Amino acid sequence: MTPKKGNAEQPRARTGRRPGQSGAREKILRAARIRFSEQGFDKTSIRAVATDAGVDPALVHHYFGTKQQLFAAVVEFPVDPETTLRAIDAVPVPQLGETLVRALLLVWDSPAGAGIVAMARRIIGGGEIALARAFLLEIVMERVRVRIATPEDDGRLRVGLVAAQMSGLLLTRKVIQLDPIEHADADTLVATIGPTVQRYLTGEIGSPAAASP
Amino acid sequence: MTPKKGNAEQPRARTGRRPGQSGAREKILRAARIRFSEQGFDKTSIRAVATDAGVDPALVHHYFGTKQQLFAAVVEFPVDPETTLRAIDAVPVPQLGETLVRALLLVWDSPAGAGIVAMARRIIGGGEIALARAFLLEIVMERVRVRIATPEDDGRLRVGLVAAQMSGLLLTRKVIQLDPIEHADADTLVATIGPTVQRYLTGEIGSPAAASP
Repeated sequence: MTPKKGNAEQPRARTGRRPGQSGAREKILRAARIRFSEQGFDKTSIRAVATDAGVDPALVHHYFGTKQQLFAAVVEFPVDPETTLRAIDAVPVPQLGETLVRALLLVWDSPAGAGIVAMARRIIGGGEIALARAFLLEIVMERVRVRIATPEDDGRLRVGLVAAQMSGLLLTRKVIQLDPIEHADADTLVATIGPTVQRYLTGEIGSPAAASP
Repeated sequence: MTPKKGNAEQPRARTGRRPGQSGAREKILRAARIRFSEQGFDKTSIRAVATDAGVDPALVHHYFGTKQQLFAAVVEFPVDPETTLRAIDAVPVPQLGETLVRALLLVWDSPAGAGIVAMARRIIGGGEIALARAFLLEIVMERVRVRIATPEDDGRLRVGLVAAQMSGLLLTRKVIQLDPIEHADADTLVATIGPTVQRYLTGEIGSPAAASP
């Protein structure tokens, strides 16, 4: 679903967005930022954001589409994460590891990658940690977790380990630009890191007892 | 070796560091920051830093100790990385994976951890990427690389993969504070991530051909 533009029903004035529209859009973004930061993604409703912003919920949907798209707008995510997440939904569980690494590299190495790096730096350097946490935990990781959860293992630690591996790959490849990782081709990284991600998701991940001397 | 204090020979004035001393110290730090950023760690000499700062090389050693300690002062590293690196030197290669994970967790989870997190956020969010790269590549990773390099494999990609894993663990555990990783006990992380680091260092890390469909 593509977010609807604010000028879908009312023609935009030649000099840009009408002040009233622009004001409402900004108010919604500001309210959403506070709600998402304080309550996370799941517990934030479009209705609550609309109330905080003093607008009708329909206007929130009108400007931003789904709640996930509203979140993406708040963190200024340069691509719709839904595209990558859908590719992950479609793949059989034994191929999740390689698919995840390949899908993320595809986005990071694309023209949209620069925007993602800028976002990561802003989030880490600035004060948007709560938003980063909500994005990773409730949007990205939860989507993978439901694929691997069993009655014995809810998979929370497993997807956390994947986040620890992949966030470090983003950091070293795109932010710090560490030579051997920055210039490694995607196939090499899929071959080396894919099996790690697969092990974290479905393999033997050891136990504290086994690791003690 | 502990860095010598600036007041080792001349008693400090009761109101604080003497203006002349403080000025030289700041000049050295400023010159070192520029050299390390532009030329990396290896190619920067104490002599060149001293020349840039307009002081005698002996004064650089006097204030900061070794070149590595000067670097640690430039990036405001809260602990002497040498302590951790020496623990890594001492361990047999087949135990490097677990040892690395345990040694880094020990520092990050210690009272000095807050300073390391602050440094990581400052480096990533700000413009100190070149310093972060020099620190990782030339100080930390090089020290591990010489342990695992063989005539067939210089180990550069291998230590890069370890950096990608461990920087992501720091990011998720201490910076983003992602629930399952933030609260996992050290033993669990050593048991789950140790084998990954060991595989990256000495195991089968796959090849692009093997990963292609």
